Formats: sequence, structure tokens, C-alpha cells
Amino acid sequence: MFELGVVYRNIVRAERAAADALAAFGCATVHEAQGRVGLMQPCMRPIYPGAQVSGTAVTVLLQPGDNWMLHVAAEQIRPGDIVVAAVTAPCTDGYFGDLLATSFQARGARALVIDAGVRDVKSLQQMGFPVWSRAVSSKGTIKATLGSVNIPVVCAGMLVTPGDVIVADDDGVVVVPAARAPAVAEAAARREALEADKRAKFAAGVLGLDLYDMRGTLAKAGLRYID
Amino acid sequence: MFELGVVYRNIVRAERAAADALAAFGCATVHEAQGRVGLMQPCMRPIYPGAQVSGTAVTVLLQPGDNWMLHVAAEQIRPGDIVVAAVTAPCTDGYFGDLLATSFQARGARALVIDAGVRDVKSLQQMGFPVWSRAVSSKGTIKATLGSVNIPVVCAGMLVTPGDVIVADDDGVVVVPAARAPAVAEAAARREALEADKRAKFAAGVLGLDLYDMRGTLAKAGLRYID
Amino acid sequence: MFELGVVYRNIVRAERAAADALAAFGCATVHEAQGRVGLMQPCMRPIYPGAQVSGTAVTVLLQPGDNWMLHVAAEQIRPGDIVVAAVTAPCTDGYFGDLLATSFQARGARALVIDAGVRDVKSLQQMGFPVWSRAVSSKGTIKATLGSVNIPVVCAGMLVTPGDVIVADDDGVVVVPAARAPAVAEAAARREALEADKRAKFAAGVLGLDLYDMRGTLAKAGLRYID
Amino acid sequence: MFELGVVYRNIVRAERAAADALAAFGCATVHEAQGRVGLMQPCMRPIYPGAQVSGTAVTVLLQPGDNWMLHVAAEQIRPGDIVVAAVTAPCTDGYFGDLLATSFQARGARALVIDAGVRDVKSLQQMGFPVWSRAVSSKGTIKATLGSVNIPVVCAGMLVTPGDVIVADDDGVVVVPAARAPAVAEAAARREALEADKRAKFAAGVLGLDLYDMRGTLAKAGLRYID
Amino acid sequence: MFELGVVYRNIVRAERAAADALAAFGCATVHEAQGRVGLMQPCMRPIYPGAQVSGTAVTVLLQPGDNWMLHVAAEQIRPGDIVVAAVTAPCTDGYFGDLLATSFQARGARALVIDAGVRDVKSLQQMGFPVWSRAVSSKGTIKATLGSVNIPVVCAGMLVTPGDVIVADDDGVVVVPAARAPAVAEAAARREALEADKRAKFAAGVLGLDLYDMRGTLAKAGLRYID
Amino acid sequence: MFELGVVYRNIVRAERAAADALAAFGCATVHEAQGRVGLMQPCMRPIYPGAQVSGTAVTVLLQPGDNWMLHVAAEQIRPGDIVVAAVTAPCTDGYFGDLLATSFQARGARALVIDAGVRDVKSLQQMGFPVWSRAVSSKGTIKATLGSVNIPVVCAGMLVTPGDVIVADDDGVVVVPAARAPAVAEAAARREALEADKRAKFAAGVLGLDLYDMRGTLAKAGLRYID
Repeated sequence: MFELGVVYRNIVRAERAAADALAAFGCATVHEAQGRVGLMQPCMRPIYPGAQVSGTAVTVLLQPGDNWMLHVAAEQIRPGDIVVAAVTAPCTDGYFGDLLATSFQARGARALVIDAGVRDVKSLQQMGFPVWSRAVSSKGTIKATLGSVNIPVVCAGMLVTPGDVIVADDDGVVVVPAARAPAVAEAAARREALEADKRAKFAAGVLGLDLYDMRGTLAKAGLRYID
Repeated sequence: MFELGVVYRNIVRAERAAADALAAFGCATVHEAQGRVGLMQPCMRPIYPGAQVSGTAVTVLLQPGDNWMLHVAAEQIRPGDIVVAAVTAPCTDGYFGDLLATSFQARGARALVIDAGVRDVKSLQQMGFPVWSRAVSSKGTIKATLGSVNIPVVCAGMLVTPGDVIVADDDGVVVVPAARAPAVAEAAARREALEADKRAKFAAGVLGLDLYDMRGTLAKAGLRYID
Repeated sequence: MFELGVVYRNIVRAERAAADALAAFGCATVHEAQGRVGLMQPCMRPIYPGAQVSGTAVTVLLQPGDNWMLHVAAEQIRPGDIVVAAVTAPCTDGYFGDLLATSFQARGARALVIDAGVRDVKSLQQMGFPVWSRAVSSKGTIKATLGSVNIPVVCAGMLVTPGDVIVADDDGVVVVPAARAPAVAEAAARREALEADKRAKFAAGVLGLDLYDMRGTLAKAGLRYID
Repeated sequence: MFELGVVYRNIVRAERAAADALAAFGCATVHEAQGRVGLMQPCMRPIYPGAQVSGTAVTVLLQPGDNWMLHVAAEQIRPGDIVVAAVTAPCTDGYFGDLLATSFQARGARALVIDAGVRDVKSLQQMGFPVWSRAVSSKGTIKATLGSVNIPVVCAGMLVTPGDVIVADDDGVVVVPAARAPAVAEAAARREALEADKRAKFAAGVLGLDLYDMRGTLAKAGLRYID
Repeated sequence: MFELGVVYRNIVRAERAAADALAAFGCATVHEAQGRVGLMQPCMRPIYPGAQVSGTAVTVLLQPGDNWMLHVAAEQIRPGDIVVAAVTAPCTDGYFGDLLATSFQARGARALVIDAGVRDVKSLQQMGFPVWSRAVSSKGTIKATLGSVNIPVVCAGMLVTPGDVIVADDDGVVVVPAARAPAVAEAAARREALEADKRAKFAAGVLGLDLYDMRGTLAKAGLRYID
Repeated sequence: MFELGVVYRNIVRAERAAADALAAFGCATVHEAQGRVGLMQPCMRPIYPGAQVSGTAVTVLLQPGDNWMLHVAAEQIRPGDIVVAAVTAPCTDGYFGDLLATSFQARGARALVIDAGVRDVKSLQQMGFPVWSRAVSSKGTIKATLGSVNIPVVCAGMLVTPGDVIVADDDGVVVVPAARAPAVAEAAARREALEADKRAKFAAGVLGLDLYDMRGTLAKAGLRYID
């Protein structure tokens, strides 16, 4: 359940090295590496293609049509953070634009993940400040009702605890619990090493049927070939 | 973050009297009474109109197209529980029908809240076993992959901790943390008492403008009347 | 374009007899009778089945998550009115429940048509106060930002001018301009008379192909029958 | 691929006894009985609750906003048929109302399944003519462009060949190929017999874990119980 | 309400200088500058990124699946216009492609805003003719039923009067009433000047909390900081 | 109806020259050239802009969340094929990434069309392996349940028979039956020749009203011009 009107100033961020290392693996590999959990819903899309980031979560709970708490959150940002914003009811308003992005970037934030809308898409791309959002909308917001900063939030269907690692790219957004980040980074590296080998074999024409030794299982499951 | 393959047998359920009392107030009043938090997304709809329940949450995390864990959950049900089921990816399959409902009802469950689909709608209505779901679908499921029982889950955008109170009616589904249930029940009762009085005044033709003394604030905000 | 912060007290309502007469024809017939214009989008659904009403529009422009103007609108209601509420951005919050319905009903309103959400569905059905809405949600609203009353609004894709006639039933909601209401009522009556005759013929087994003399046109368009 | 401008007059309908027998089992059981294939997408909903039918498909391919071919189809209806209508592009218009329903009913049709909208919902319920559709809309249609009757069509994601059996109820719509109808009816009957036995056991408190002997498999899959 | 079958040849276009000037400010700034009204729904998206335009509206009301009126509209285009097209019922068909774009461009149109679908996306980008639409679809349309040109229309939820200024970019589409265009252009310029100053301060690390002097209000609203 | 657990090894592919030639015309022109049939729903979008392909269909029927059959399909690919994948229930999981793409590309496949999700979007673009899909998702899939290869499937609302020609670009995906491919290629070429001429006339300022001789028909339909 979500507490309103509080800002937690001291959060336990994931170990920096692991948090930084995860970007290189990308969302899909990290999702696999941690056992297929932690993925936000696929409605979360990047506002421009090509960005790939990881960082530690500063979380925000917003009210519909009200971005007051994003200003409160700005003060809590440390270099290497990614702001993760949830809203208490479905809303597509444009909570965030180039001014706030300038502020977030100056504080060291790497990206915003928001379960709502953003605006100033072109400027954000020029600034190199990536956002993953549910919508793009010019509709601005007011500053009238309290939410919270750095409480656990649910963003696009996934629970995010402050300090968790966020990994985002063109494939979506995944959440890695702070404590698991080093182990997940290792598992992702192992997975990627294996994939390089498989990729070479696939490129050489080897079939997955043989590489993964599937023919027996398929036959046992009853697959019939008809000429 | 969500742990797969575990069943917690001992959960702390909300106090029975409070959990039972909340049904009578309904989802909207309870949502207001606890400060406008805890509401599941409005895509969660009752499969038939008129049911109004409350109970303690037994939670289930399911895999897409796989209802194995609902059988595991059945054993954990105690009289007065409501089963709350989340899925690790969006899915509209019919995870639940009259057989499982018979089992759940025999165990003492009052309802199911599931962020996916159900089937046997007509039988469920005849049995008096209400379900709130995102979809209705005849598509059955398999029993092949582990999820978990009685871990915190995100259902329709809301975090549910095992033992929380669930209140559901035609207006939707709200979650009340176990520890807050008695206080919320009291607040809801107070709110309802106040509403009875207001209702009488409204019925007598008194306007909200006067009852809530809004005319001054509206004028100050700049409202202009034009004849 | 929409003016904020104004309430027009004097609106020209459609002629009462025509406004009242249109209910009996229902939404689909009225839509046809006025030349297939004026229909709101099909996302507007009744919160309970079976209601069929017509009345003169009192319009409201609301802000997202804010129902202040519904209280302002209540004062402008006269017996035989239907309140039509639009919102300045997409929103599914529950703007309206049994208290406001009691007030609206006491003022003589026949229904609410709202391009957002409502709550207290069961009570509204018991009171016999029908609502057509885009959503049902327990999420309440605040009273903080001005909108307007009795300006032209766009509700579910359709322009509604204060005083227009609204006709709503299980098939949806249609808007008839005040000045055209008497003519549309006549056209609807003529259409219904014709339909009674056609219904009898269809019931007797006559085909539309013959009743509407379509065989020649179909052949000319190139329809081929294959045995 | 779909041929436009043709009407096939002679279609091979499924055996009458099997086609009629399937209604009693309902959509979910029939779907299971034929191996979990043939289900239309869950967006297909009944316009009123409680109807449960089966019958042989007369198919129609419609153009967007144009119901001309429904009149052509009426002539091809024989007692025990269900009309299945697809559209060449997504459309929610109200293609069908009480007049056409009167005609279809007079010809012996039992229901309409349409991947678009219908209107006159209240009258259709009073007449007892059930419809499964994607939408309800008062928007009427014109009669200007040819489609086809009794060609294979894709309705709500499922291929329907003329003469196939359609089974529809509150859980959705399933298609059974004509040739398989007798075998599916038998399989459904067997399945239902088994379910009666299971239902009794579940009602007596037996768990699915024991009834289906799942405990070993779950343990082998790694399920851990935590006290 | 919407009149069918008419073409208004003489419309009062917004003052040219103001209409042209608004492009530079972009959709979000213009929307703010005119008091947060006039925004089309966020489902309206550019078919390729980066375009930013303003111009005077020539409006078209289309029938579903029928683009006849776009040809009628072409004759009414003057240099500096943007065509705004609404449809009488939801439709995603591709009403517009490179041929019509060539014609519109030759007449001096700067863009199309259409509450439906378009096609030839790649060619339109190569031609530099931007379109904002709800969908992309190869489905062509017929030319059979009358709509209207230069009547007020509702496009993506917003009322557009012929001659209004349309401003569109990657953030969406906003409508400025013709009479207000000069004042809105001035307000937008003022707003932009202010933003440049704020941007510099944010870039230097000043927080919105201090720049907007929010700390007191937040404390008064009850915000608590927890270490 | 769909058969599960079978792989047809010998399929009749469309004539190579025609299958290859269709790419140049693009989806919209081919759709028109074959009489406005065969288009998949507009929810099918390219994962990156600019790709334009045609090829012969190898079809796959997948289970929700299970990509086993894509490996089985890989073996059936011949140079010039496009894999078309349908799923037995709505699913947005990421069935396909860069490893499978490497394998498909090594076998000679030109693209994938899948009624579900994909991942590794950035790598796929770098490899030049285009995909048209309903979603992008990092969610991986399992390999547990049989589907089929090279049976007729319904993909995004359209029936695809193995060997049919698929044409896909930024405007969508169209299916051309194998036997009709040469005739459609000819019709598309004729259409394109005509369009070049029309384009020149439109560019010179000729109106569609005159080019298509519409003025008389419009007047007859009742169009009124108002000054």
C-alpha cells in the first residue's frame, strides 16, 4: 500500500558497479538472466529509438494531472539515478518536458521511466535525455496535491523499490532488486558469452533443432512431419 | 520483485472483524476512507452484477496460460479469504472455471480477483461465487510452470500483500493493508454516517454549492456567471 | 474552442414536447431520423441495462480528476434536463456517485452522460438514475480547478450545445440540436410507422432482397450465385 | 484469401444432431473437447447475458459500414443456422437491428455472430435473438458495395468455413469444423461426465493437488513450502 | 451538430502572421499559452518524427471508408492551410496517400491532420508532407457518400472551426481559435522567453523547489521528509 | 480449423519472379491491385521504419508464450521466404530475437510477420532483418507445447496459406494467394504506371475533381456550395 506525503531521503542504492554494468546487456538479456521476472508492461515505450541505459531508481508517486512531486524528487537525485514515476490513477498527461529534464540532467539523472505521458520529445532527444513512457502528450500538469518520493511504487505493473536497478532500451524496461544486481550482472555476462557462440553457429546454418537437441523431444511430444 | 517457486504457509491475516465489516461499505467508500489509495485499475470488472464482498487476501503469482498455482493456492485458503491472482505477463486466458470455484468455495473462499480471464460465467453466478477479472475467455490453461503463493503481488496495478483486506463490488476492487483494516473500517463508518445526512439534504433540494459552502471559493477562483 | 471559468445561466432549451417525445423512439431510430449524424462514440455505455431517456442538455466542462463543476451545474438543472459532462483530458475517475445523483434527481435531472467514470453503480440503479459513461471507477475526485457550465462541449467525439436534446438507451447516446428536435421527432415517428409494416413482412418470411427490391441492383453490381 | 461478389448456395452443413447437441456443453467445454482450438477472440461478447446456442454457420463477408450482404445472406439461411459475419476492415457500426433479426428469425436462424457492432439491443433481447459482437452502436450502415456469402471468413481471429458448427454462450464463441462435430460432441459428453465426478469431490473438500496427483510433480519442479 | 453535403467557400482564416508564427513555439508551449485548452487527444501521432508546422484549418467531415470529400476539400485549400479531417464514425482506413498529398502540396497545404488512417508513409516523408493521424493503414477508401467541407468538426475530441490555427509537432496537435491567434502568439513568445531563463538556472543546478519557491507550500500541505 | 502437431514439408510456393517483383510496389498498391482484399489489421507495425519486402510464406502456429515451433519452422525455410507466425490466443511476449533472426537469415528468410511480440529490436535493425509485429516485449518464451508449421493460419485477421506471397512495408502487410501473384504483379505495374501520370497532373495543380470528373456526380448527390 502506498503512503502519501512522504519523502525518504536515505535509500539503499544498488552497488554502483553492478548498476552501471547492466546497461550493456540490455533489457531482454537482463530479464532472462534474473529468471524472467521484473519486466514492466510492454506499453512502456522509449520516446526516441536507440537509447540504452541502466541506473539506480529514485521513485515518485504522482497524482493524476499533477507533477509537483517530480520537483521534490529532483532534489533526491544523485549521479547515476533513473527516476521512476507512477501515478495513482491512469493518466496520459505530459508530466515532464525539457525544463525538468534540464534539472534532472544537471542533478546526474540518466533517464525517466514514467507510467504516464511526457512532452517536448524533440528537445529531449536533442538533449540526449531518454524517457520511457506510456504516452506522449502536450497536456501540462498542475502542482497542487502531495504524492511521495522514494517509497515502493508500482510502475507499469511492476513493483519498484527505491535503489533498485532499472535497465531500459528499445525492448522495454526491467527492474533488478538492488541486492541481486551483482549476481544478475554476472548471470547476464555468462548468458551473453553463450549467445555469442550460438550466434556463430546459427550464422553458419546450424539449426536450433540440432543446437538445442530438440528433435527427440518434439517426436516424443507427437510432432508429425508430412511430405 | 517477485520470487518464483515458493509457497508461504503462514501469513498474517487482517483482523477478522474488520475484514468482514468492510464489505458493507463498498469499494468506493473504503477507498475514500483510507485516503484514496489502494484501488485496482478500472479494467477489473465483476463477471456478474450485484456481488459485494470483503475478505483476506491469499495471493497467487501465475505464469501466462498456466493455472497450476491456483491448485496450490487452494490448500492455503481459509474461510473468509479472497484469492488474488496476478500473472507475470499480460494474458486473457480463462484460468478459472466452475470446478476450481467449487474447490475454492469448499475451502471457504469468498471470491476471486484475477488480472486475467475466467470462464463458466453462468455457472459461477449460479453458484454465487463472484469473480472480478480483466476478461472472460473460454481458453483453458496448462499446468507446467511454477509461480508462487502468498508472496506480495501486483494485481491490476496495485500491490497486494498476503493477508490484506480486499473489498470488491460493482465499482471495482480496493486493497486495505492488514494493519490498517480496523482504522479504515471506523473511518468508513464515520464517512457513511455523514453521507446519510448529506443525502437527506440533497434529496430536499439543498445544493452542494451551499452544503459545502463553495460559492466564495468559486468566486475567488474567478468563476463568472453570465445571464 | 472552450472557455474556462464561466457559467451561462440562460440557455435556449429545445421545445419540451419534442424533447420528451424522442425518448420513445430510442437512440438508433433518432440517429437515423436526423440523417445519421449526432452519435456519440460507442465507448459510451449505460451503467445498467434497460434505461431509455431523453431530455435537454445542461453541459459541463470538467478538469481531469476534478468534479467541482458538477456542483455548479446542479444549480442550473431544470426538470427534464440531462447533464452532459466532458473532460479536458482523457480520465476514467469516478466523478459522480449517489450523493450527486440525489441532488441532480431532486433538481429534476433525468440522467447523466459523462465522458469519464462514475461510481456507486448499484445505488444509482436502485435510485433509477441512469448514467452513460466511458468507465466505472471508485476513484474519487477533488474540487480545485474551474471548468465551465453551459458552454458547447465535445463529449465522446460529439459536439453538444446547451439545450440540445439527448437521447440515450442501451444502443448509445445521440444528440439532436434544439432547433431540429420537433422535425426529428416527426421523422422518427414516420420511420417507426414504416418499420412496423416492414417488421410484419419480415416476420411473415418476406426477404429484404424483395422488400427493398435489391435483386436487380445486386446483379448489376456483379453478384454471382454459385450452386 | 477472400473472393468478393459471390454467393455459394450449396454448402455442406454439419450433421444436424451433432450441431444441435453441442449447445448443451457450452463454449468452454467444446473448446477443450476439440483440443483447445477454434476459439474466437475474447472481444466477442453477448449483447445480453444467459443465451447459449449452437448451430451451423452461414458466413458473410461485409464491407465497412455496409450491411448489404446480410440481406443476401438471409435467403441462404435454413432452420438451425447461425449467421457468422466478418468485415474487410475494423468497424464498430451497428450492422444489424430488430428488423433484420425478425427476418433472420423467420428464416430459422438461431443467432448472429458478428465481428462489428449491432443495435436495438433491448428489442433483440425481448425477441430472444442472441448476438455475439465486438461492439454495440446505433450507427447504421449503407447498402452499396458487394461482399460475399458462404465463403470461408475470418471472424474475430478464427477461420469459419460455411457449415461449421458455432457454439456460443457467456464465455464466448467457438468454431467446430463440420466433419469433426460428432466426434467433438462425444468428447464433450465424456468430458462433462468426468467433470461431474470431480465437482463432487471438490465440493467435498478434496484438493486438486490430490485429485490430480500434483504434489510430486510440483516438488520435482522445485516448489518450496515456507512456514 | 454536423451538416452533411455542404461546402463553405468563404471562411475567415486567422491572421497570416500569427498563424505562421505559432509553428516555432510548438504544440506544448502553444497549449500552455492559451490556457491549457484546445489539445487533440494523444492518439494523434505524426507518421514520421521531426515535423513542426502551423497553418489555418480547412476542415472536412468524411464518411467511414470514403475519402470523396478530401478531393472536394483540395479545391478550397489556399497556401498556408492545414487540412483537418474528421470522420462520422471510428475508422482506421487509409484515406490519404501520396497522390492526394501531391495535390494538397501543389495547392499550398502544409499538412494533414486526420482522425483516421493514412498510407504511403515513406513517400509522404520523402515529399516532406507531414500527417498527424490515429492510424496507418493500406486499406483504401471509396468515393460514394457526401460529407462536408469547412463546417465546424470534432477531430480527436477537439472542436475545429474553419480558419482556426493548427499547431502540430512530435508532441501532438493543438487548435487555436482564429481570433485568439495573435494574442496566443504573444503569450507563447513571453512564455518562451521566461523558459530560457529557467532553463539556464536548471542547467546550473538550481532546483525547481527553490526556483518556484515551493518549499513552504509543500510543508504547509504536510510533506514530511524522513531520514 | 487448425491442426496441431504437424509440419508440412512440401508446400507450393508462389512463382519466384512474381513473389520477388511485388516488393517494389509496396503494400498499399498491391492491396489495391488485387481488389482490396488480403490486408492484415493495422496493428501490425514494422519494428523499424523503411523496410520494404516481399517473399513466400512459411507459416507457423504458435502457442501463447511458447516459441518452440519457430525452431521447427527454421528448417522449412528456403531462400526468399517470409515466416508468418500466428498464436492460438492473444499474446504480446517476445517470441523472436537476434539469435533466431541469425538462424532465419542464414536459411534465406527475408522477414518475419508475427501476431505477437519480438525483442532485440536494435540488433534486428543492425542485422537488416525486418519484422512486422503487434508488440515489442523483452518477455521470453518457453519451448513446451506443439503448434504446427505450414498449415493455413490466421495472422492479424487475415488467412495465410503456406506459399502465399507476403508484401510488407511501412504501410502494413498484405497477403497475395500464390496462384494470383503473377496477375497481381501485372495489375500493380499497370496501376503504378497510371499513378505516375496522375502524380504529374496533381503536381501541376490539376484537381482530383477534374482529373476524376467528379463535379457532376457530386452535384447529383446533392453537394451544395455556399459562398
